[in-house]
Amino acid sequence: MSLGRQPARTVLITGAAGFLGSHLCDRFVAQGWHVIGVDNLLTGIPRNLAQINGNRHFQFVQQDVAKPLAIDCHLDLVLHFASPASPRDYLRHPIATLEVDSVGTFNTLELADARRARYLLASTSEVYGDPQVHPQPETYWGHVNPTGPRSVYDEGKRFAEALTMAYHRSRGLDARIVRIFNTYGPRMRADDGRVIPQFITCALSGTPLPVQGDGRQTRSFCFVDDLVEGIYRLATYEGLAGEVVNLGNTEEVSLLELIESVASLIGRTPQLAYLPLPQDDPSRRRPDIRRAELALGWTPQVPLREGLRRTIDWFARAG
Amino acid sequence: MSLGRQPARTVLITGAAGFLGSHLCDRFVAQGWHVIGVDNLLTGIPRNLAQINGNRHFQFVQQDVAKPLAIDCHLDLVLHFASPASPRDYLRHPIATLEVDSVGTFNTLELADARRARYLLASTSEVYGDPQVHPQPETYWGHVNPTGPRSVYDEGKRFAEALTMAYHRSRGLDARIVRIFNTYGPRMRADDGRVIPQFITCALSGTPLPVQGDGRQTRSFCFVDDLVEGIYRLATYEGLAGEVVNLGNTEEVSLLELIESVASLIGRTPQLAYLPLPQDDPSRRRPDIRRAELALGWTPQVPLREGLRRTIDWFARAG
Repeated sequence: MSLGRQPARTVLITGAAGFLGSHLCDRFVAQGWHVIGVDNLLTGIPRNLAQINGNRHFQFVQQDVAKPLAIDCHLDLVLHFASPASPRDYLRHPIATLEVDSVGTFNTLELADARRARYLLASTSEVYGDPQVHPQPETYWGHVNPTGPRSVYDEGKRFAEALTMAYHRSRGLDARIVRIFNTYGPRMRADDGRVIPQFITCALSGTPLPVQGDGRQTRSFCFVDDLVEGIYRLATYEGLAGEVVNLGNTEEVSLLELIESVASLIGRTPQLAYLPLPQDDPSRRRPDIRRAELALGWTPQVPLREGLRRTIDWFARAG
Repeated sequence: MSLGRQPARTVLITGAAGFLGSHLCDRFVAQGWHVIGVDNLLTGIPRNLAQINGNRHFQFVQQDVAKPLAIDCHLDLVLHFASPASPRDYLRHPIATLEVDSVGTFNTLELADARRARYLLASTSEVYGDPQVHPQPETYWGHVNPTGPRSVYDEGKRFAEALTMAYHRSRGLDARIVRIFNTYGPRMRADDGRVIPQFITCALSGTPLPVQGDGRQTRSFCFVDDLVEGIYRLATYEGLAGEVVNLGNTEEVSLLELIESVASLIGRTPQLAYLPLPQDDPSRRRPDIRRAELALGWTPQVPLREGLRRTIDWFARAG
């Protein structure tokens, strides 16, 4: 899509080699932006950027955003997507997670403030913890254990939200926050511990599927293309400074239903291996997305079965 | 109290020139410790340390703990008490508050870890937010708005707790967390916006007492000597690594009852000036202190009226 005579705008995306970050790099380049992607490759992988490496509108900087950022050029937009995000990743890197969500957020906010750029923080449904309200609207304060093992991510992101709002309130920064619910699609790491890549890779290889708890806990899964569309709108629409917006799919499925869908698409009946439920695992979580519908005209478009089919295709090719 | 033949142990106390920090410096020096007090004097005041400046067991370092700490000596104990702590202070310094509670906590944890020193984090009843459970035990997860104006302190401290526990879990650091409920006594700043110094200074000067809301919201107030005793025990008792302990007084009084006590001790009937309630102001908060009773053998000893009398005497002399 051409921007006509308008000069290319520049966006800095942290976590560029991650699952969501890499899809955002693709999308912004496709929309005519100049993209600077930053990643320390702690949990991101270079292969996620193979398709735009060499594109003259894309530049990759390998760096930890918890270290001072030496980015000298003009910026219109900063998207802070760097952070381990799956429980397996953040429990393996607890201190690095707390560091990127605090010091990394400070550094990227300072950069955006210095360039008078707009700022978008990638937050998460994990800020709602194990919610006592269903579905969760943005006004719900959450139910999070501040000292449990998962607090490294949940409290890290709650801190990042508080900090982002402080820059918005006290420095006048045009900052926005997206709370991202479970998302899936191509480029998830097979080993990140999340259920969809795990179920797909197990089903493809014919090994037993691990099920935590009784498998009746529900989740809502949003296909990555839908999520990227919502983020693009939240990042580029005018008049949303200080807004917090949930993005996710409202369709709830239990883990057992998810397994059935994956199995029927692959055409194999899987063996199940039941495991204990991890500490503070939320039993249920579903977004209230009325704010996104109203402010962004956004609703998810890709049905679960269709998204799973595309994801299985990608894993079958990538594997 | 003499330590006999034992060599003096060394404690580093951040926030040393603050209300609680300065009383802790006094207490540890009195118990035979060598004390290094650190403060950037953002909200602390040098006068709070006048009584031990010059003592050969006390050393003051003026520095922001969010900047790297150049402390080379052996340390047995680190007490992290630096942070703006009254709503007026942290709303005036929102970004500095988030910085000391995150980067300052990182720096002091790294220092304790490098010296194999024990670590004690000063946390707060504000991590419980506007609680939906009364009284609040340490197992209560809290009810905090992550993006409201007060989140700079509430989420800053929740982050500091999560970080402290991460160092305890992943590095084996002997770390402990104290959640401090409302405390009062000599050396509170008259202008810090908290109710007891405000009521006392207004009553002493004969100006109207500001009451937020209808004055029926309750608080529990602990006299500083009681609190310092509890902190000293939590910092020095063996076998409490990874513990989170509430310290505070369980006696609930409404703001109107508090005003009556102050007025009767001073001997003047005050004028009241009613003001609107600030955003997210907790309507009620009271500690469950059974864990402190069990683990530390601690209960508050000073009745409110006696503590108020000593505090009024100090304000009358200091003013």
